[in-house]
Parts: sequence; C-alpha cells; structure tokens
Amino acid sequence: MFLRNCWYTALWSNELKDKPIAKTLLNEKIVLFRSARGDVGALEDCCCHRAAPLSLGEIAGDYLACGYHGLKFDVNGKCVELPDGNQVPSGAKVRSYPIAEKWNVVWIWMGDPAKADPGKIPDLPWLSEPKWTATPGRLHVKSNYQFIVDNLLDFTHVAYVHKRTIAGDPREATEPLKPERLNDGIGISRWLLDVQPPPLFANAGNFKGNVDRWQVARWHPPGVVYLDVGCAKAGTGAPQGDRSQGISIWSTHLLTPETEHTSHYMFCFSRDFNLEDEGMSKLLYEGSRATFLEDVDFLEALQNNRADGSLDGLIHLAADAGQLQARRMLSSMISAEQA
Amino acid sequence: MFLRNCWYTALWSNELKDKPIAKTLLNEKIVLFRSARGDVGALEDCCCHRAAPLSLGEIAGDYLACGYHGLKFDVNGKCVELPDGNQVPSGAKVRSYPIAEKWNVVWIWMGDPAKADPGKIPDLPWLSEPKWTATPGRLHVKSNYQFIVDNLLDFTHVAYVHKRTIAGDPREATEPLKPERLNDGIGISRWLLDVQPPPLFANAGNFKGNVDRWQVARWHPPGVVYLDVGCAKAGTGAPQGDRSQGISIWSTHLLTPETEHTSHYMFCFSRDFNLEDEGMSKLLYEGSRATFLEDVDFLEALQNNRADGSLDGLIHLAADAGQLQARRMLSSMISAEQA
Amino acid sequence: MFLRNCWYTALWSNELKDKPIAKTLLNEKIVLFRSARGDVGALEDCCCHRAAPLSLGEIAGDYLACGYHGLKFDVNGKCVELPDGNQVPSGAKVRSYPIAEKWNVVWIWMGDPAKADPGKIPDLPWLSEPKWTATPGRLHVKSNYQFIVDNLLDFTHVAYVHKRTIAGDPREATEPLKPERLNDGIGISRWLLDVQPPPLFANAGNFKGNVDRWQVARWHPPGVVYLDVGCAKAGTGAPQGDRSQGISIWSTHLLTPETEHTSHYMFCFSRDFNLEDEGMSKLLYEGSRATFLEDVDFLEALQNNRADGSLDGLIHLAADAGQLQARRMLSSMISAEQA
Repeated sequence: MFLRNCWYTALWSNELKDKPIAKTLLNEKIVLFRSARGDVGALEDCCCHRAAPLSLGEIAGDYLACGYHGLKFDVNGKCVELPDGNQVPSGAKVRSYPIAEKWNVVWIWMGDPAKADPGKIPDLPWLSEPKWTATPGRLHVKSNYQFIVDNLLDFTHVAYVHKRTIAGDPREATEPLKPERLNDGIGISRWLLDVQPPPLFANAGNFKGNVDRWQVARWHPPGVVYLDVGCAKAGTGAPQGDRSQGISIWSTHLLTPETEHTSHYMFCFSRDFNLEDEGMSKLLYEGSRATFLEDVDFLEALQNNRADGSLDGLIHLAADAGQLQARRMLSSMISAEQA
Repeated sequence: MFLRNCWYTALWSNELKDKPIAKTLLNEKIVLFRSARGDVGALEDCCCHRAAPLSLGEIAGDYLACGYHGLKFDVNGKCVELPDGNQVPSGAKVRSYPIAEKWNVVWIWMGDPAKADPGKIPDLPWLSEPKWTATPGRLHVKSNYQFIVDNLLDFTHVAYVHKRTIAGDPREATEPLKPERLNDGIGISRWLLDVQPPPLFANAGNFKGNVDRWQVARWHPPGVVYLDVGCAKAGTGAPQGDRSQGISIWSTHLLTPETEHTSHYMFCFSRDFNLEDEGMSKLLYEGSRATFLEDVDFLEALQNNRADGSLDGLIHLAADAGQLQARRMLSSMISAEQA
Repeated sequence: MFLRNCWYTALWSNELKDKPIAKTLLNEKIVLFRSARGDVGALEDCCCHRAAPLSLGEIAGDYLACGYHGLKFDVNGKCVELPDGNQVPSGAKVRSYPIAEKWNVVWIWMGDPAKADPGKIPDLPWLSEPKWTATPGRLHVKSNYQFIVDNLLDFTHVAYVHKRTIAGDPREATEPLKPERLNDGIGISRWLLDVQPPPLFANAGNFKGNVDRWQVARWHPPGVVYLDVGCAKAGTGAPQGDRSQGISIWSTHLLTPETEHTSHYMFCFSRDFNLEDEGMSKLLYEGSRATFLEDVDFLEALQNNRADGSLDGLIHLAADAGQLQARRMLSSMISAEQA
C-alpha cells in the first residue's frame, strides 16, 4: 500500500553521530549508522544470529557491532567478523537499504535496490546551501502521512487551526487557490494582497502595516512538500517578482510513513534574511514547531476517525482540488508499481 | 447487541456549558452541544468534509463550527455554512440523534429516530424537583454495563465490598430479598429491622442506637437503576410508612455503554432533609463516590475475567433472582428488537 | 505450545504471607494462598458465582473467602460455605492445581493432576539448606521464556552485555564450551584459566591477581537453569577440585511462562562463604539483579523482533550448541505430550 520505488527521508544528516539510530519506516525496523569513513549504512535492525536489534550495538570503525554477541556488519549488511574468530558463514548478513545523502538529508530507498537513482531526489537547495539559514526539526505524528500531505496542500485551515500563530486575515479561508499539475507532483498557489501580516511574520519582518502575502506549495510524491511563503510591504511589487521589501521563508516538510497510522515528520524553515541572527533562528524554529503542533492535534484526531487514511464518502470544497489531485497521482503511481 | 430503541443518559444537563463535549456511546462517537437558544444537539463527532471531530470546534451561536475548516452545523446535523461562502451542497450533513432533556439529564435515543418518544423516559423527580437536594457525579468504569446493573440489584455484596463505607450489619449478606416484576422493569426490596446503622447513615442521621433499614431498588431497562434506601430509629413505624424519625436517600444510577467493555456511570444522591446544608451535600457526594469506587474495583476485575459480559456457566444464589430476571428481560427486549 | 505435565515455579515460599497472590501462568489466571494450617492452594482466580477474582478476597483460616460475596473455598477449590448459609450446591467449585513445596519454592503442576509427582522436582539444595546463604529475587520479563533459557546457556554474551558487571576477560567471548546431554536436561561448562576476575567476583572474593574461573550451567526442562560459577586464585588447583582458595556461587534461574511473550523470572544467588555477612548478601543480591536487568534489555528487544519466540532462519555459532540441544529436547517433549 506504500509506494516502494522512491526515496523516503530517514534522518537529517546531522542526526547521525556516534550512535546507531533505530527507525521504523514503512513498517520495517531499520538501524542507521555512519561508519568511521563517513558512509551511511541502513540495515535491518535484527542481527542474523540471535535477532537482537543492531541499534543496541555500537559503531566500531567502519562496522556496526551487535551489542549481544559482537558480530560486526559493514554498511552493506555483510557480517565481517564473529566473536569467536571463526570463519564467517556466507549466510551471515542482514538486509541493507540503498542510501543517498543530499541537502543535509539521509534518503533511503525502500523498493528494488536496482532502481535506486539519486538523480530522482527532489531539489531542495534551501536546506543546505550557504545563502540560507535552516532551522530543522522533527515530530512524530500518530496519523497516516497522507493526511499530513492533505493538510499542507490546504491553506483554508490556517484561519481556524492556526488562529494563535500564523493566521492573519479572514481571507485565508476564502481566497481561492490555483492548483497546477507539475511534471513530478502537484503545486498550488495564491496571493493575498493588502492584508494584515500573521503574527509570526509580523514579528520576524517588523511590518507596521498591511502586506502582500504569497503562499506557494509543491508536493513531490510520496512525502516531500515545500512551501514558499512570505510577505512584502503591500504594493511594493512582490506579485511582479520584487521581494526586496519582504521576507520569504521556505518551509520544507519531509514525511515518511512509520506505519499506516503513524508518520515521521521532518520539518525545516529556511530563510534568506538575517542569516546569522540566532534569536531569529530560535523564533522561527519555535514558531514553526508550535504551528505544526497545532496541526498535529487535528491530524491525530482525523486518524482516530478514519483508520484507513482515506477520504471516502467525504464532501470536498473548491479549495480541496490540489490535495485531491495529489491523492489521485499517488494512488495511480502505487497501482502502476504493483501491476 | 445493545438495545437501540430506548433512551440512554448522555450527560447531566449542567455539564453542557460553552464547549462541545465528546462522548462515545454504544461504540459511536458523538459530540453534544447546547446552542445559544438552548437546544441540545447530538451529532456524529466527525465532520462530513475532512473527518475532524466536531468536538474540537466551537459553539457559534446556534451552530457548532468545525475547528478544522469552519463548517457550521445546526443541532440537526445540517451544514448551514461553508468557509468559502459557496453554496452548501445537499450532502453536507452529519448524523444527528434525538435528544430530550428531563430531570436535569440529557437523554439520547440511539435507535430509530421515528420511535423516539420522550414519554418513555422513567420518572426520576428527585433529580430535579425543589423538595430534594441532589448531589450528582460521574464515573467511567472499565466494565460492561450489565455487571453494574447486576451489582446494583445485589445487596448481598454490601457486607463484603463496602465494609469500610455503607455496610452496617452482618445480616446484609443473609437477609432475603423480594424480587418483583414491574410493568417496565424489575424491583427488589427488603427490610432490616433493629440493626446497626451503616457508618454513612449513622453520620448523616445522627442515630445513637439501632435502626430499621429499608432497601428498595428499581431497574428500568436498559440502564436506569434507582435505590430508595434509608434508616429510621428502630420501632418508630417506618415499615408501616412513617419515615418521620428517619432519613431517606434516593440514589440514582444512570448507565450507558461506552463500548461492550466500558461504561459511563452517572450517579446522584438525592435527600429530603437538611436541604441547604452544604456540609451534608459534601458528605453525601464524597461518601457515595467513595462507595461506588469500591464497586468499581470489583466491576473492572469481573470484566477482566469475563470479556463477554455474560454470566454463562456461573452458579447463582437465592439473592440473585432479581438480577437474573433483569438480564432475561433485557435479553428478550434486544431479541425482539432485532427480530 | 507449552509443556504441561511438568513442575513450574510459581513463588518463593516466603512470598506467601497473609494475603492471596494472583499470578498468570501459561495464560491461566491463578490465585495462590497459604491456609492457616500451612497448606498452599492454587486455584483458578475466578469465583464460580460472579467471576470475581478470588485474589481480591482474603484468607479466612483454612479457606479463601471471595471478596465480592464471601463464598469460601478450600485449597482444593471446593466451595465450603455460602454467605446466605444455604447448602452449597455440588457444582460450586473452582479449578485447582497440584502444588508441591520444596527448596523454598512453591511448584505448580499445570498438566494432568494424576501425573503430578513431586519426585520429578529437580535437586536444588543450595536454595534451602543451612550451609548456603541464598539471596532470592524476582523479575518480570517481557520475553518468551525460551529466549531466557537460551541466554543462560550462552556464555558468549557476557563479554558484551555484561561489560559493566560480571564480564572480566575478552576470552569470555571466545573460549569454547562443552555441551553435554544429561539424563534430564542439558549441561554446558568451561574453564577460563589465569584470567582477570570479573568486578562482582573481584569485590566479593577480594582477589588481587588473576583467577581460574569456572562456569557450569545445567538446564532442566522446561524452566529451571542453574549455574555453578566461581573463581579461585589462579593455579591453586580449582580445575582439579580444590576450591579452597576460591569462592563459588550457585545461581538459580526459575522461569515460568506468563504468556507466550512474557515470563516470570525468579532468581537466586547462593554462596557457601561469609554466610552471615549481610553486606555480602546485599552486594550479591543487588549485583545479580543489576546483571539480570542488563539481560532483560536484550531479551525484551529480542522478543520485539521475534514475536513467535523461535530461532527460525537465524545462523548459529559454535557456542550455541548447548542451547540448540535444549530447544530440540524441549520441542520433542512437547510433541510427545501432544501426540
């Protein structure tokens, strides 16, 4: 039921330090570690000898050593050493998963390894390039990942769910969105002209009066969503491309199913202003996290009402066009893969 | 497996204030709210648009507004307003349940709405009439509601389970009970003459010596039980109808299945003495709650031993006649309904 | 799937005081109590009248009285008294289990009562005889009991799992073990000559230099394992039988399945030195418990990876021969019993 032949996001690169990390992805228990030479291994989190989770072990140079009996595995899952010094039998190995590191993210391929092409990783330069300051974080959400994608492609909820954080103007709920079918994904966008800035932007951008506000979202299947949102002083030409009187935040949302009903949610705000301002970083990190936690309350309640993650039998509003297109695209990709 | 065409108790009337309240009743998730004009709505707790629980929303005048996208519903479950101002599609509605308010209780009809007749609500005047002072409360019990009904129609357990609260005399366990088939329910009753008063009554009635004690229980299917229990100074004519030297407490127990193995338990002590005495109210509320919590320990342990809520294969004592009649009556009502 | 016709360990004898004790053994809920005359009863923990757990009752002389309605049961599960004084119906009884007390342990027979022969209880004199000081304890482990047996017949893990407690020498992981098929069980043993003492023994025995160390384990199906482990000053003749320069600890492990995936683990260290030294008792009790808790972390993680408790599809090392023999022996005993 999950798309398999695609890149999922496992970790932020800097989460991999001197300890192995256990993650369940698509119902599979996986251990990730970085070897002494810097390679990342993603292995089945279950030793082939006595089934101990390798995540209870430790990194020994280029290998991961099981904490139960000391068997050592390389990043490809091959056992290279037994504790008794005997010859390693040929069957001594655990499943490994293709890995790619890009944009400060560890990407994992959960399908056929032969098809794992790092060229298919979406472009997210604002996560790692020096002209941006990124403030990444992570949440665990007890909800199917599709509800989270729906929510990110839905700007209407902002006026209701985010009243205390990013909501700024009642027109949030009513301004129509333009959905757009992309080569590899779905986009939606809209402009709110001459509106009050939402509190988070008002603080960060020090706006005194109304702003022109843009909201652009892009979804790349199955679990990458990024939003280009920002405000510029009203009437200074932002809709025509001049953002010099505004501030812009790229907000990235990297979703990976843990199970059918729980999800890993990596998020990041990236800004191109006040790059060295740690107070600003703190404000944006904490502001974004507080905002996403407001979503989480609803997402988990939705899951509770809809165990299968579907939208079957529900009614749709005009603003839902983008999320419905995204669901259809993903559904047909999964069908094609399983055919 | 539940009786459907009957009134269940959802809330005490005064529990409905300015927020919607979520309750699961008979496995169905329901939101209850009181509109500005005072009507009570009981709706499926799941918005027809994106499945958010309506109980996360807020009361907006006569309507309940979804907290996710602002759709507004009336007390009949009809959507009356969309956030984008577009016309409401005809399918935009959620299931609603018939409601009646009587005796300070919000009653809900879980079966065929056409059959919902408020005339079928049992008489419980001591819950609301001015000559009584009522001290209502609520418990959540991890037990099938039938075990709770059994327990209320069983006076024998008092000597064992309630040693530290309402038990007074060893004859509690041995005095026979007279079961009685009522028009709509089952009754049991007995008198204990010239016995020590139990601690709760001794305190409340300030008795110095022995008392004549009465215990009368009535069950109305499926989940209403009330007990008329009291003590009068021994030999002052209470059995003949003169309660002037005694005190009397009507104890009401309103049970609604949450699931097959959990129950909502609303309870109330009503007295016709010391009406304005707040210390007495506190004593009776806290005393009754402490007593019922002693029952809860056993009720939850029973449920743990008997997941199906039945009494199959158990032996019965003479004192169990009333509860067995009640189980048979309920069982045949459920069968008749499903035929 | 469990061996039935065998003795399991239910309690340490001194755990049975003035209250009944509830235990789930092999998925069956059981109440144990000691009557006034000293007999132990093991009964189904469910009253035949209203299904209340008898473990919520109290011991009344030679009987166990139900806490719900006061029915009294003897150690054989026969109801001997009703609360209303009426004659006890012949069907008023609960299942009872054969019990034997030996070595300060309450043993329970979970199979055909006619086959319960106390002569089949393994010899464990160090648990109760005066020349030993025993420091018993108990753990609850969320793991199938067979993983615990495996672990006790596996000395290789000591160098990895018990680094901070009993591990002493890297040779722990590499020295071969001699497995041995016993009349009724499996044994394994080895000597580590001229090695550093592990911290626990170094403290207890006050060794200054290297020691000769022995490790002998015996498993009796299904759940009794004991280890004779010790150290003597290196070169003082311990391998030839002279333990006068050493200390010896018999470590007993009594495992009973609670369910397929949880186990009761009673443990005891017995020593034949410093018998009256309470500091030593404390050191050994706390040291053993700390050590076993290190195992528990792995055992519970194994169970998490292997819900069925099997070793199917895993690879085996030379040191695993003993545990594999034990698994095969138990498996054929279970098959024989079910044939």
